Amino acid sequence: MWDRLLIDCHVATMVPRAGDPLGVVRNGAIGILDGKIVRVGPRTEMAGTRASEVVPLGGAWVTPGLIDCHTHLVFGGNRADEHAMRRAGASYEDIANAGGGIASTVAHTRAASATELIDGARRRLHALMRGGCTTVEIKSGYGLDTAAEMRLLNTAKALGRSEPVRVVATLLALHALPPGRDRAEFVDEAVEQMIPAVAAAGLATSVDAFCESIGFTLAETERLFAAATAHGLRVKLHAEQLSNRGGAKMAARYEALSADHLEHIDEAGVAAMAEAGMVAVLLPGAFYALQETRKPPVDLLRAYGVPMAVATDCNPGTSPLLSPTLAINMACTLFGLTPEEALAGMTVNAARALGLEAEVGTLAPGKAADLAVWRESPIELAYWIGLPGPERRIFGGLDC
Amino acid sequence: MWDRLLIDCHVATMVPRAGDPLGVVRNGAIGILDGKIVRVGPRTEMAGTRASEVVPLGGAWVTPGLIDCHTHLVFGGNRADEHAMRRAGASYEDIANAGGGIASTVAHTRAASATELIDGARRRLHALMRGGCTTVEIKSGYGLDTAAEMRLLNTAKALGRSEPVRVVATLLALHALPPGRDRAEFVDEAVEQMIPAVAAAGLATSVDAFCESIGFTLAETERLFAAATAHGLRVKLHAEQLSNRGGAKMAARYEALSADHLEHIDEAGVAAMAEAGMVAVLLPGAFYALQETRKPPVDLLRAYGVPMAVATDCNPGTSPLLSPTLAINMACTLFGLTPEEALAGMTVNAARALGLEAEVGTLAPGKAADLAVWRESPIELAYWIGLPGPERRIFGGLDC
Repeated sequence: MWDRLLIDCHVATMVPRAGDPLGVVRNGAIGILDGKIVRVGPRTEMAGTRASEVVPLGGAWVTPGLIDCHTHLVFGGNRADEHAMRRAGASYEDIANAGGGIASTVAHTRAASATELIDGARRRLHALMRGGCTTVEIKSGYGLDTAAEMRLLNTAKALGRSEPVRVVATLLALHALPPGRDRAEFVDEAVEQMIPAVAAAGLATSVDAFCESIGFTLAETERLFAAATAHGLRVKLHAEQLSNRGGAKMAARYEALSADHLEHIDEAGVAAMAEAGMVAVLLPGAFYALQETRKPPVDLLRAYGVPMAVATDCNPGTSPLLSPTLAINMACTLFGLTPEEALAGMTVNAARALGLEAEVGTLAPGKAADLAVWRESPIELAYWIGLPGPERRIFGGLDC
Repeated sequence: MWDRLLIDCHVATMVPRAGDPLGVVRNGAIGILDGKIVRVGPRTEMAGTRASEVVPLGGAWVTPGLIDCHTHLVFGGNRADEHAMRRAGASYEDIANAGGGIASTVAHTRAASATELIDGARRRLHALMRGGCTTVEIKSGYGLDTAAEMRLLNTAKALGRSEPVRVVATLLALHALPPGRDRAEFVDEAVEQMIPAVAAAGLATSVDAFCESIGFTLAETERLFAAATAHGLRVKLHAEQLSNRGGAKMAARYEALSADHLEHIDEAGVAAMAEAGMVAVLLPGAFYALQETRKPPVDLLRAYGVPMAVATDCNPGTSPLLSPTLAINMACTLFGLTPEEALAGMTVNAARALGLEAEVGTLAPGKAADLAVWRESPIELAYWIGLPGPERRIFGGLDC
């Protein structure tokens, strides 16, 4: 006796078959028990099954709940003023001189009360949920000292407990050098204090860094990764966004879950990612907001069989993107992904980028019953620009 | 005694003042009677007023309800398959050979039942309303004969009667040549049958055309405009989108409300628009979806004082854009408008592009009480990418 049986629907299981990357079951049904999927298949093959509730979906499409595997949702203030300044002709330098940029967000984040911090993040999380997300990764990174980073992770965790959504918290330990801090001393703190404290408190499953000319060096990042690994945490990396520094290749040696951005990655980096089974997380929102011109090498990623995920990168500076389906559309429009690749990028491959592939990302027995029910077909999710969201969102088997 | 008094809010009236393009009233209040605004000003100046209902807005921002002044909402089917084909490498020619393009939408539109037609359009209209729209223009143009065009206009009008939104119907008489029709004969039908029939039935207030190499010539368009004017209808034009054909300049001679797209307009065209008091309607969704590179000459439009409106251009082929705030963001990000210009583009200037400036588009006594109530500040509306929509939408003074 199941809890629910969803019927009168088409299902995109996201378990690919030959010639069918979406693993479609037309006229399908989905059995749910204890928050998990027990069976997915054609309705006709489930004639003898029984469920407490039979839910007809009126011919809708069901996909896995969307997974946003790269966000920076928890921050104070916003940077709308900088956006306005840029439109009015200000350079990044002008903005920095006016106290803008990441330093501005760090100051607003530190100054925000607990209520302000969680309310702002909750509003953004609700936007992503309304857009179809059932799993959202949230990075810290606007605290820039151990206590402040832990506060952000605690906020992310609190949201995961209070909202019907799975929150995955990531310690973004090396995001920016705090104004006035000594560089070596700050990296020491990240390695020697942040990581042990976060690991001991169980506040994050992964550690992330921004390996870039304007971020941290390869050597600093590697030191961080060694410490993370020693403390039983997985790693992932903001890599090759503005230049190719070999971050992804280095990350592969630490069995990183993913390398993210990748506009400037070279073939050696892609090969290393493939070898290590890493996911390439593509972030078209930042590419769009910054009006970049260099795209990630999608053909190369395809050729090497590197799984591609797609995420909003929701953050106050370079990607204030609040819609997962818009990330899907942008991945197609700006980076040339196919609609099927982009949808895999916010389901099955996003799960893998979070190390959650055993739990979410496809519709198959044993997986969480996290679903999105759409009036639109799967390829329409990539086609419409600014689609409001699914008709229903089911988390752990329940409508919410 | 007013019906409602909105308090505890900041108001962007969109009536510009020196140094304040948004006409902001901080700690403002808005009095509403019989669906219209009777007073807008600082709360402190309305101490003695009385209203049946006092509505505290918790510190929110109030703007005029958004106005989408250029859409093609009523159509059958969608073109998600073409979007997918393009991503998979197909050219426009491949798509046309596969029966795609506008001909595909015309076929689906003609084949759609009345219910299918209105349900599809209603879903898209609801998306725009959820995004903050209280006025939406809807063009015909997928019928391509008199009866079929009138059916589309009737559908648009029916939506305006049944939904809490102001619908402005436009006869897009020369959109595309129907497959197999003789060119001259079709233009004759538009001039001699469509316009008189639509004018007599009161089904549209304006007549539009697509003046372009792949559309209709300047001479054909001018013949249409002469007929429209003779029948007491205003005109507007899809002009200079792919090439500069002098459409905007010609339209100026017919006192057109607007010329729309304008990526390729030259200075003479801009000067003519300024002289005639026309509005430039910018459509960044089509620019984005087609990944065009040539932008409309925003500096030139500013220099000549041509008012700029912004619209979604929501249509199944070149701009399946369902979010007015995303159109605002794209106008800033892609075309370089300031947040204030972009918001004016979907309020005061959009009203003017529809000839409705006496009724909507600003918050001032005598205007319709069509409002959007936002948790975000006006400049944040341009900053967030994929913002879900306002907290409340008030149409004719009522929440809906």
